[in-house]
Amino acid sequence: MLIRVINPNTTASMTTLIEANARAVAGPGVVVEAVTPAMGPASIESHYDEALAVPGLLAEIIAGERDGADGYVVACFGDPGLDAAREVAAGPVVGIAEAAMHAAMLVGRGFSVVTTLGRTAGRALDLASRYAPAGACRGVHACEIPVLELESDPSVLPRVTALAREALERDGSDVIVLGCAGMAGLCHDVSAELGVPVVDGVTAATLMVQSLVTLGLGTSKRDEYAAPLFKPYLGLLSDFMQPDGGGSRQGGVRAKEGLV
Amino acid sequence: MLIRVINPNTTASMTTLIEANARAVAGPGVVVEAVTPAMGPASIESHYDEALAVPGLLAEIIAGERDGADGYVVACFGDPGLDAAREVAAGPVVGIAEAAMHAAMLVGRGFSVVTTLGRTAGRALDLASRYAPAGACRGVHACEIPVLELESDPSVLPRVTALAREALERDGSDVIVLGCAGMAGLCHDVSAELGVPVVDGVTAATLMVQSLVTLGLGTSKRDEYAAPLFKPYLGLLSDFMQPDGGGSRQGGVRAKEGLV
Amino acid sequence: MLIRVINPNTTASMTTLIEANARAVAGPGVVVEAVTPAMGPASIESHYDEALAVPGLLAEIIAGERDGADGYVVACFGDPGLDAAREVAAGPVVGIAEAAMHAAMLVGRGFSVVTTLGRTAGRALDLASRYAPAGACRGVHACEIPVLELESDPSVLPRVTALAREALERDGSDVIVLGCAGMAGLCHDVSAELGVPVVDGVTAATLMVQSLVTLGLGTSKRDEYAAPLFKPYLGLLSDFMQPDGGGSRQGGVRAKEGLV
Amino acid sequence: MLIRVINPNTTASMTTLIEANARAVAGPGVVVEAVTPAMGPASIESHYDEALAVPGLLAEIIAGERDGADGYVVACFGDPGLDAAREVAAGPVVGIAEAAMHAAMLVGRGFSVVTTLGRTAGRALDLASRYAPAGACRGVHACEIPVLELESDPSVLPRVTALAREALERDGSDVIVLGCAGMAGLCHDVSAELGVPVVDGVTAATLMVQSLVTLGLGTSKRDEYAAPLFKPYLGLLSDFMQPDGGGSRQGGVRAKEGLV
Amino acid sequence: MLIRVINPNTTASMTTLIEANARAVAGPGVVVEAVTPAMGPASIESHYDEALAVPGLLAEIIAGERDGADGYVVACFGDPGLDAAREVAAGPVVGIAEAAMHAAMLVGRGFSVVTTLGRTAGRALDLASRYAPAGACRGVHACEIPVLELESDPSVLPRVTALAREALERDGSDVIVLGCAGMAGLCHDVSAELGVPVVDGVTAATLMVQSLVTLGLGTSKRDEYAAPLFKPYLGLLSDFMQPDGGGSRQGGVRAKEGLV
Amino acid sequence: MLIRVINPNTTASMTTLIEANARAVAGPGVVVEAVTPAMGPASIESHYDEALAVPGLLAEIIAGERDGADGYVVACFGDPGLDAAREVAAGPVVGIAEAAMHAAMLVGRGFSVVTTLGRTAGRALDLASRYAPAGACRGVHACEIPVLELESDPSVLPRVTALAREALERDGSDVIVLGCAGMAGLCHDVSAELGVPVVDGVTAATLMVQSLVTLGLGTSKRDEYAAPLFKPYLGLLSDFMQPDGGGSRQGGVRAKEGLV
Repeated sequence: MLIRVINPNTTASMTTLIEANARAVAGPGVVVEAVTPAMGPASIESHYDEALAVPGLLAEIIAGERDGADGYVVACFGDPGLDAAREVAAGPVVGIAEAAMHAAMLVGRGFSVVTTLGRTAGRALDLASRYAPAGACRGVHACEIPVLELESDPSVLPRVTALAREALERDGSDVIVLGCAGMAGLCHDVSAELGVPVVDGVTAATLMVQSLVTLGLGTSKRDEYAAPLFKPYLGLLSDFMQPDGGGSRQGGVRAKEGLV
Repeated sequence: MLIRVINPNTTASMTTLIEANARAVAGPGVVVEAVTPAMGPASIESHYDEALAVPGLLAEIIAGERDGADGYVVACFGDPGLDAAREVAAGPVVGIAEAAMHAAMLVGRGFSVVTTLGRTAGRALDLASRYAPAGACRGVHACEIPVLELESDPSVLPRVTALAREALERDGSDVIVLGCAGMAGLCHDVSAELGVPVVDGVTAATLMVQSLVTLGLGTSKRDEYAAPLFKPYLGLLSDFMQPDGGGSRQGGVRAKEGLV
Repeated sequence: MLIRVINPNTTASMTTLIEANARAVAGPGVVVEAVTPAMGPASIESHYDEALAVPGLLAEIIAGERDGADGYVVACFGDPGLDAAREVAAGPVVGIAEAAMHAAMLVGRGFSVVTTLGRTAGRALDLASRYAPAGACRGVHACEIPVLELESDPSVLPRVTALAREALERDGSDVIVLGCAGMAGLCHDVSAELGVPVVDGVTAATLMVQSLVTLGLGTSKRDEYAAPLFKPYLGLLSDFMQPDGGGSRQGGVRAKEGLV
Repeated sequence: MLIRVINPNTTASMTTLIEANARAVAGPGVVVEAVTPAMGPASIESHYDEALAVPGLLAEIIAGERDGADGYVVACFGDPGLDAAREVAAGPVVGIAEAAMHAAMLVGRGFSVVTTLGRTAGRALDLASRYAPAGACRGVHACEIPVLELESDPSVLPRVTALAREALERDGSDVIVLGCAGMAGLCHDVSAELGVPVVDGVTAATLMVQSLVTLGLGTSKRDEYAAPLFKPYLGLLSDFMQPDGGGSRQGGVRAKEGLV
Repeated sequence: MLIRVINPNTTASMTTLIEANARAVAGPGVVVEAVTPAMGPASIESHYDEALAVPGLLAEIIAGERDGADGYVVACFGDPGLDAAREVAAGPVVGIAEAAMHAAMLVGRGFSVVTTLGRTAGRALDLASRYAPAGACRGVHACEIPVLELESDPSVLPRVTALAREALERDGSDVIVLGCAGMAGLCHDVSAELGVPVVDGVTAATLMVQSLVTLGLGTSKRDEYAAPLFKPYLGLLSDFMQPDGGGSRQGGVRAKEGLV
Repeated sequence: MLIRVINPNTTASMTTLIEANARAVAGPGVVVEAVTPAMGPASIESHYDEALAVPGLLAEIIAGERDGADGYVVACFGDPGLDAAREVAAGPVVGIAEAAMHAAMLVGRGFSVVTTLGRTAGRALDLASRYAPAGACRGVHACEIPVLELESDPSVLPRVTALAREALERDGSDVIVLGCAGMAGLCHDVSAELGVPVVDGVTAATLMVQSLVTLGLGTSKRDEYAAPLFKPYLGLLSDFMQPDGGGSRQGGVRAKEGLV
């Protein structure tokens, strides 16, 4: 089984970190490959960044289809481009916010999200209201550390831990969800410190994709997520014209080569 | 007052239609300019199309900021890129689904959406749950006419009218919302035939933007919709690196010139 | 275009203030007339006041129909009598809470209401749950200044500003909605001080009515908001017996003359 | 214990029917008096009727306070003036829609409302969303028999029964709620015919008020439902100026005498 | 009329307390009998306790059917086994959380629950979301006094009062619901101290059952709550094989005798 | 890794079927053991059956803890005893309705449940509202085949397939969830016939438990799901007195031996 984990930003060191975390949990016989898009923002910290990360992400899905990937993880907590990716891919596509929130609901009553910048909280709440019933997500809390400083800033672990502790108290929650792919490495330390489950979306999504592929489940192609219809695309994005080669997996090679 | 109405697809004839409808309702002294992006899909009928329409849309917002636009209409019923556009623009940005749904709530108890392809219904329902309380949107109904055939197909008016009539009955609704910018021209005929308010989002959004500008209201820049932070952008999309020139309206010229 | 703005309380000085604010935003060619009912409470600060303000309000709607008004603003933040007014009027009727909340949703993620007395918060929350999805209205905060003291008390601006600042923090909101027609004059000062959009319902509703009339949209007369059926009315309120003269705009003169 | 059952319309024969039904279930020692307001519409079949029934209803609450009533039933399925009545009364006030819906939730999974005119369905749904969680009220169905014909039209029982049977099927419900005080007499026959609980609000509300009084529970006077503040009232409604005589039960006599 | 009040735990002194409270409010001619199950936990303070209290509770319902009980109260705030009990009983079955929440909604805008241990708050919130619309239950607060210490600990009244006062402030609520059958005795003292309605579920449920029986309303036997089908039961619980003796009230004697 | 799959009913042939399905998807090195409780109903088709299946289920959880199980599947679509099981187990416990609904949300927009008896639909809807946001579960449809006839009745596959096809149409759904552990074997055939994802909870839950154990995630022990407190248990159920031996995994042996 081949799982492509797509880091939707263009920072390769973050892709490396994500890949290591995903591989650490994947089952025997599961090949996990993390990829970095050829276009887009170095990090995703706004709706603008997120919107502009999607073309690069979709190019990686198209490439994955060519390469025979069985499923995909979208490794950014805003779950960018998830609906579009589901139209293009034959197999399952799971976002890390989605995976983390579903996992959190399985191990507790209510979760708090601990994330990077406060300005991304709106997106996290939007996703929570799409994935979970009211009351499951009890709060979103920002440590105000930019995504690309997560790796280098030595204060990250204590700050995230302190914020998570406060979130449990204030929200009356019993599970912590880490709100950024770049926090994957913090999972066990924060959990050990606080004594509650701490969910990282990268690992959770990797295992959800692995499970769905094992179950033979991919996105429903009935209606909404059917392959997109062919049509003219202009300008910079004209190589995206034919995502699926007319509906068959064999087609669309030219488009894919042009994109990645 | 300058209102830019952005047709997020790249079909110029549709932009012309949209502009005519928007201008027909704008107040004295309001300049309405409809624009067609330089990149992206010819029509938007899938999440894939929608995601790939957003860069072209954002380029037009960036250009609009350079040109001193006071507000924007996003003239596709999927409201693509709305959150990102709000980060970039100083003035208000209103989507046509958003505008139509808000207007519909002001003139009735519950509305039905009549749209093009059934596969877009999921997006319409997502938007309804973001903009309106449960129960306001009572159904989404597709005539299965592709967007680009709306202009030429003579059966459009009778088919949309028949579908709307059926929707009122089945949903117990009292207002019809037209679910595509390309349906703007049908508004009065369907209303006259059915005797209920029929809301077109292009005209509704134009007047909502005009109203917000008159009220001095633009998107809140507190937190979520603040201007996006500067950061490296790679590849095809590298010209999007600096949407707002560092936060001032004067900056960012290079990026803008490269994009439109 | 004639817009009647009805101040549902019987304090004429407040009507004057409301009219000035509404006129300041109305478009060229739009005649805005604010009126004071001939019966009812001097201010509306309870469900009791609100209920007893409705007959006077409806009398003004009936008078407006006689006078050829194209649309109406109900200028009290409790939106009293809105459903009944929609049955009587041929054109659109918009409440100021309704207008303010819809406008607030167009310029931010979540709004806080700053109002007069705490005892009115329940009504504001009821209205929010009718007009907006869960999560849009993040809090209702009272300055505990009675409606009729808003004009004279010099501490109003600083107190409302301080309360609004605190509301933004506590609620995590990004837009302020002023919860009383008598606060219309505070709008720009509070916004300038806090740097967020501050929405006043009187001006927002005036422009929404103007927009709806321009769009040719009035309340749907299908079912719920059809003209009320004729029937006997007894006692003090017998003059309300025939609101629409049997369904035509020409009729009902006697009733109207008796009421206003 | 004295329970005042207020028929908010001015049709005395309906009051007689309501009183008989209420008395039939009241406990030993409970005095049930049904009253007809001195002003207002002969029946309530629109928001307009409902709004104009409220002053007469409130006058009866004020009179009831003077007469020492321990609690009140508002015997119209639109629950008109309930919030205002709660401010005025010291004891509990229960609407018949409210009582019927609460009772229905205690004896089944989901209820259907069978009511008079289709145009009142919006109000019933509004009330359901205020009193019950989503999913409890599964549908509102109209037999299109006007309120005042319920007594005389011999087809009422078979038509209501047929409609209720159909509602159970279509809605997947297991309880019927009768949506009009004038249907109180049908309760047992419809239940016997269909084999499901059929709830009439008049009797349910009478026993809920009786229960609340027995429990020593009246409307909370903390904040929202505190007695309304004294203030000037003008015109036709000036006698409503002082509902509670300045907060004490002894006061307000003059106002009360003027009203009923 | 015979009402069986079932204390689902096995502590007889608590049954005595419950019976006294229930009898104090029951109407003339209503026989209230409180019973203690023959099996199960001494108190219910976890999901585990609650689940294991249900067989004993159901045995009491079966016995009650044999004895001709007209209705039942389930006197534990977790409303354990309510759905199952409704299948077995011919008459109404009401839980005390359910009754208290419905009563609280009739006398105020929003209630706070004051309960024993914090670990039970999740269950209370689950029940609130089943019985009440969002926003009715504004908070659940624990005094951290175990159920069986409520009777003996002299600090209970001041601690519950203080917690309730704080809850009113923090939640913006106007009614207090006592979250344990063992708190029934505190009702009037807390209410007197705080000046708001304080609802005890034991007395509220007793009167709701009495009212439902008077109205001739029992659980709907259409579909979900029909008598359970006969089938083999193994092991310790084999005596539960035939709850209703094949659907008739006369049968099932053997099973019942084995259980109680 | 040891996963215990508990069939909460006492029909051993169904346990065998469940075990075969669970084992077919479990990863290398994962030991899946399905067990049948020593007490309780032969099948679960009512709230009564479900409630009385819980003690046997909990005994198996207690035994699993003694045996070192890493996680548990509760293999009945009503998810009986899930909250209680989570208090007792150190590792994760996942119900099959829960797992199926979460998986369904990952591969489509909205799912329909196809289940056995119509009387269980209420429970399925309750669970859907606990696990999923409004709109995810679009309908519950019953084939009216009793649980224990699923294995032997040759018409099961065509009937379930036909019902699922109809559900997709009527509900506008794009995924089918099988609503009974006994339907696990139908999964691939129905999916092949209808061309949409068909989710079986047994296999989905097995992989979710496997994933959670791999991630190091068990139920949060903060507050609600902490181990239940020790207390006296009477009568038939007295062996359940000490589920966890005072909080340590080593204790509680006596209780466990008595139960299984």
